[in-house]
Amino acid sequence: MDWMKDSIMMTKGVGKNNKGETHQLTEKTQGTYQYTMGPYSKPVMHIKPGDTVVVETRDAFEGKIQKESDKPSEKLEMPFLNPQNGPIMVEGAEKGDAIAVYIDKMVPRGSNPLGTCCMIEEFGALTGTSYTATLNDPLPEKVRKINLDEKNVYWSDRITLPYKPHIGTLSCSPEIDSINSLTPDNHGGNMDLPDMGPGSITYLPVRSPGGRLFIGDAHACQGDGEVCGVAVEYPTTTTIKVDLIKNYTIEWPRLETKDMLMAIGSTRPLEDATRIAYRELVRWLAKDFKFDQWDIYMILSQVGKVRLGNFVDPKYTVGAGIEKKYLK
Amino acid sequence: MDWMKDSIMMTKGVGKNNKGETHQLTEKTQGTYQYTMGPYSKPVMHIKPGDTVVVETRDAFEGKIQKESDKPSEKLEMPFLNPQNGPIMVEGAEKGDAIAVYIDKMVPRGSNPLGTCCMIEEFGALTGTSYTATLNDPLPEKVRKINLDEKNVYWSDRITLPYKPHIGTLSCSPEIDSINSLTPDNHGGNMDLPDMGPGSITYLPVRSPGGRLFIGDAHACQGDGEVCGVAVEYPTTTTIKVDLIKNYTIEWPRLETKDMLMAIGSTRPLEDATRIAYRELVRWLAKDFKFDQWDIYMILSQVGKVRLGNFVDPKYTVGAGIEKKYLK
Amino acid sequence: MDWMKDSIMMTKGVGKNNKGETHQLTEKTQGTYQYTMGPYSKPVMHIKPGDTVVVETRDAFEGKIQKESDKPSEKLEMPFLNPQNGPIMVEGAEKGDAIAVYIDKMVPRGSNPLGTCCMIEEFGALTGTSYTATLNDPLPEKVRKINLDEKNVYWSDRITLPYKPHIGTLSCSPEIDSINSLTPDNHGGNMDLPDMGPGSITYLPVRSPGGRLFIGDAHACQGDGEVCGVAVEYPTTTTIKVDLIKNYTIEWPRLETKDMLMAIGSTRPLEDATRIAYRELVRWLAKDFKFDQWDIYMILSQVGKVRLGNFVDPKYTVGAGIEKKYLK
Amino acid sequence: MDWMKDSIMMTKGVGKNNKGETHQLTEKTQGTYQYTMGPYSKPVMHIKPGDTVVVETRDAFEGKIQKESDKPSEKLEMPFLNPQNGPIMVEGAEKGDAIAVYIDKMVPRGSNPLGTCCMIEEFGALTGTSYTATLNDPLPEKVRKINLDEKNVYWSDRITLPYKPHIGTLSCSPEIDSINSLTPDNHGGNMDLPDMGPGSITYLPVRSPGGRLFIGDAHACQGDGEVCGVAVEYPTTTTIKVDLIKNYTIEWPRLETKDMLMAIGSTRPLEDATRIAYRELVRWLAKDFKFDQWDIYMILSQVGKVRLGNFVDPKYTVGAGIEKKYLK
Repeated sequence: MDWMKDSIMMTKGVGKNNKGETHQLTEKTQGTYQYTMGPYSKPVMHIKPGDTVVVETRDAFEGKIQKESDKPSEKLEMPFLNPQNGPIMVEGAEKGDAIAVYIDKMVPRGSNPLGTCCMIEEFGALTGTSYTATLNDPLPEKVRKINLDEKNVYWSDRITLPYKPHIGTLSCSPEIDSINSLTPDNHGGNMDLPDMGPGSITYLPVRSPGGRLFIGDAHACQGDGEVCGVAVEYPTTTTIKVDLIKNYTIEWPRLETKDMLMAIGSTRPLEDATRIAYRELVRWLAKDFKFDQWDIYMILSQVGKVRLGNFVDPKYTVGAGIEKKYLK
Repeated sequence: MDWMKDSIMMTKGVGKNNKGETHQLTEKTQGTYQYTMGPYSKPVMHIKPGDTVVVETRDAFEGKIQKESDKPSEKLEMPFLNPQNGPIMVEGAEKGDAIAVYIDKMVPRGSNPLGTCCMIEEFGALTGTSYTATLNDPLPEKVRKINLDEKNVYWSDRITLPYKPHIGTLSCSPEIDSINSLTPDNHGGNMDLPDMGPGSITYLPVRSPGGRLFIGDAHACQGDGEVCGVAVEYPTTTTIKVDLIKNYTIEWPRLETKDMLMAIGSTRPLEDATRIAYRELVRWLAKDFKFDQWDIYMILSQVGKVRLGNFVDPKYTVGAGIEKKYLK
Repeated sequence: MDWMKDSIMMTKGVGKNNKGETHQLTEKTQGTYQYTMGPYSKPVMHIKPGDTVVVETRDAFEGKIQKESDKPSEKLEMPFLNPQNGPIMVEGAEKGDAIAVYIDKMVPRGSNPLGTCCMIEEFGALTGTSYTATLNDPLPEKVRKINLDEKNVYWSDRITLPYKPHIGTLSCSPEIDSINSLTPDNHGGNMDLPDMGPGSITYLPVRSPGGRLFIGDAHACQGDGEVCGVAVEYPTTTTIKVDLIKNYTIEWPRLETKDMLMAIGSTRPLEDATRIAYRELVRWLAKDFKFDQWDIYMILSQVGKVRLGNFVDPKYTVGAGIEKKYLK
Repeated sequence: MDWMKDSIMMTKGVGKNNKGETHQLTEKTQGTYQYTMGPYSKPVMHIKPGDTVVVETRDAFEGKIQKESDKPSEKLEMPFLNPQNGPIMVEGAEKGDAIAVYIDKMVPRGSNPLGTCCMIEEFGALTGTSYTATLNDPLPEKVRKINLDEKNVYWSDRITLPYKPHIGTLSCSPEIDSINSLTPDNHGGNMDLPDMGPGSITYLPVRSPGGRLFIGDAHACQGDGEVCGVAVEYPTTTTIKVDLIKNYTIEWPRLETKDMLMAIGSTRPLEDATRIAYRELVRWLAKDFKFDQWDIYMILSQVGKVRLGNFVDPKYTVGAGIEKKYLK
């Protein structure tokens, strides 16, 4: 955690010297979960920059898929998917600021099998969908219920996966839009970036008073692109520390870890998401690290790292990053 | 107008036998225009199926671009663009129904130069944009103020264009999303289809009580794709007749004219918008006109008509149509 | 045909005053048909600018699909599809020139049923394909054999389509690539533009000595986008007049009819094909018709016409056009 | 190198027990380098499965960019870029086989500055290009000449990059197409995958007699996506060992390293390249590792790894991989 003291969050955040209060955002406190991120919903909590929130997230199916014989088409009702905690209001946050979210811990919550994976009709990367519309018969519906703990995800007798949790959906509110929780865009949203796990800091653009922070969609593990459309979805107790950076205007979310800085873009087609991420990264490095714009463009052509978050959501997400060691 | 009596609207609409009341939705009645289409805004009017509404639409820039020396970057403030009239509540409309909007007349409103066209930085098809992110310098900002009347659009000494008006943005509300008026999707929205002019009927999916109809963004003329991002934008008095078709569940908007049926899809990339439109058309014709699905798929490969609405908005719009003469 | 004398072909072509010889390119003269367009194949004919060629084209399946019970997967062998006549060498053609191809007549050749349409596994717009790879089961294979004459295409008892022939594949050779006849690109190729019928002139970039003209893939009719992947394919006797325009360097093919000028782009995704076509059109009109670049960009936003050729081939084709009446 | 004995190459290759001869493919032996990969060029060498070839590759600009004041637009002549060694004929290779290429060593060749990076007009990911056609002014041309050795790439006083070489372009010949060396597709080609370095094995589909192996385009280092369009291009002496796997029919190239199996797809848009790579991987694992197709699809949703090769070439390249540890 030593690196944290040099992070953007800890050097620029207004709450960096606050001891900080800890809040509990339980299922009960949350009440009804949110299915859109926007400025029209009622706040569930008010916090100060530097505070900690312990959040009880529900799984992306809100617990409705309980056994392997369940059919997603019968249990799920569009668009009421991917329930979000929030909105959490951050004191002092205004349009043009950024909210920093440090993910401290993600602990499985409840009794096994806690994990759910499934194949949903007309959803996923290797099938016709509502947007890539085909006349083919849909793929079969499949449900996997999976035991997991803080070490492993016990997929099957043959395969055990490492527990590598991350938050799939994180955002502040857009200024006037209210966007369903399945869709990522420049407010954040359903980005599904495996890098967004414990030890990471996400910077989100503030576009409405209080920022209106939403969080949900924990994944016990997820591959690049989330190819079948679903990770190992599970309920958690997730601990985050939230700070506010004043007058730090960013167009798209950004992410920082011990070793990496990453800019995040979400749109279709996928090359445009990648273009956004890389352009943001070029501009970020040129501005804050005093690189010549063309020099850093060419340097990223040598050392840039691309993470495919998802290519299954209504918009696709890509992170473009650089290792911090090059930035000294 | 004889064809109207055989239209879907007139054969299935619940208001077809109503004499129908005429409502005035003036600038004053509207008050604040809407910049998102969603379920959270306050209705401006309640009507019955079969009623007529005379709507005072504002131009897409809400009149802020007044002379050719104006700079769009100084006059316009994102995301407060493309002001919409509405929401208009239609009595009896419920999720699973469709609302039919017959456009009767579009009359220019105010004094010349009524038309505005411009080049906006990082907007349009032949420039890097916020989604197709490049590092190139933006194109120059340009503004054209254009005289027009119900016959012609007087572009320049060299070129006169025909007055061929249509409505650029038309929609009911999504179920839970509130979507900015620049973006089309399966609710309708900023489709920019030149076919959506006087004499056309648009069918919109109802997803919330009352339907919540929004309308705006009149174009005095527009080419396929709206390549520079802007049509000849102008304020109008637009007369529409609105009806309700119960239990007529459609996934995407549809359009009917004297000669054509058209299904409409909006997404990126453009091939996916086209796929949506054609799949909807295949399914529509198979279901309502009793074609074998594969036969009509192959027939459309011979006589299908594609209209590119726009490829400049956050999502692109395509209409796929068939001439009615093949449907007897 | 009066308009022809003012066409680009007739005003700039070096053969415009030649009486012109007429050549027969029969099946026998052709011998083996071509499956790639490139600089490596042996010429079948040498002509002079202004000459006429009467070409016996074979259908896209080279006659292998003979009855409705045939299975395309058994009869067709990739990549030996879409047989082309040529290469025809045009005297004096050099890199930097353009070859003009006026299509005079397309007459069905042989005995009915002359037309073939089919659904081919993993081919077409509304199915997973080898490029839009999905795990869905393929659509069923279907074959239609169709009677046709110079008036109509007799699809079924229910539906008769108009005979509206065009050439699907037309090109000169790339400079060093040899490209299969299924793929369009900046050399022309499998563009499937319904506008490329009798009465049209296509301008093709010359990139190797003699130009090396290829032609084939006649369609008795075709809808926008050729949605199922196949038009009404048929064998023809097609009469073309070929001319040469020296030092007329074009990046992409162009098309001229009595009423329209059109630039053609082919790539994926579809918005990029459309961008290419519109950019070529902007530059063409700015250069040859003395429009201000930004003015014509905005004018095309009002009157530009887009034709979707296909969105099923390895690259998609779009034509962007303007009516000549605006160009005086 | 111990893992090699369990590799697909060493377990299935017909040359695995051959001692193997070593051939020198010098600049002189090569003579004229190749700019297309196809069946029409004259072989430069015949080898046996299991043989080693020491190849003198030239840099992607064929040494024409010699100093930082050189302008790419003046020095380079399209399409004569990315010169390839080959074609190398492999004894016994026939359509339906695969050729395995183990990269043993890549050693810089010549005197410093050996590395070249540049910004080329209308090329790269963050600029309008010939395919993503815009009207913006191009980015400036820039050239960097860079010292490098087998440890480092000395980019500037501020930044030193690690020497992490790989081969950018590797392929057998397509069956009938001859494809320029800038374009990747299912034959391989200009994939620009950083994983294709020393210690990796690439499996390429054989589609013509002898396979016709081409190799070139060495990169001293390259970031994911090769964002500016150019890596650190340099001339090498590259040592490869080539084997032949009979009756091993693959649709797309595959890659194996000590820890990973990867399938490779190349097309536009980028999501389709990713779809291809993941579908190939699903089918490969289902067939050769006896996974249930749907189970491995869901498993890859948890542990799949995506590498973006490039999103700058005429087609984009993505590798989708899985760590071997999950395959026991």
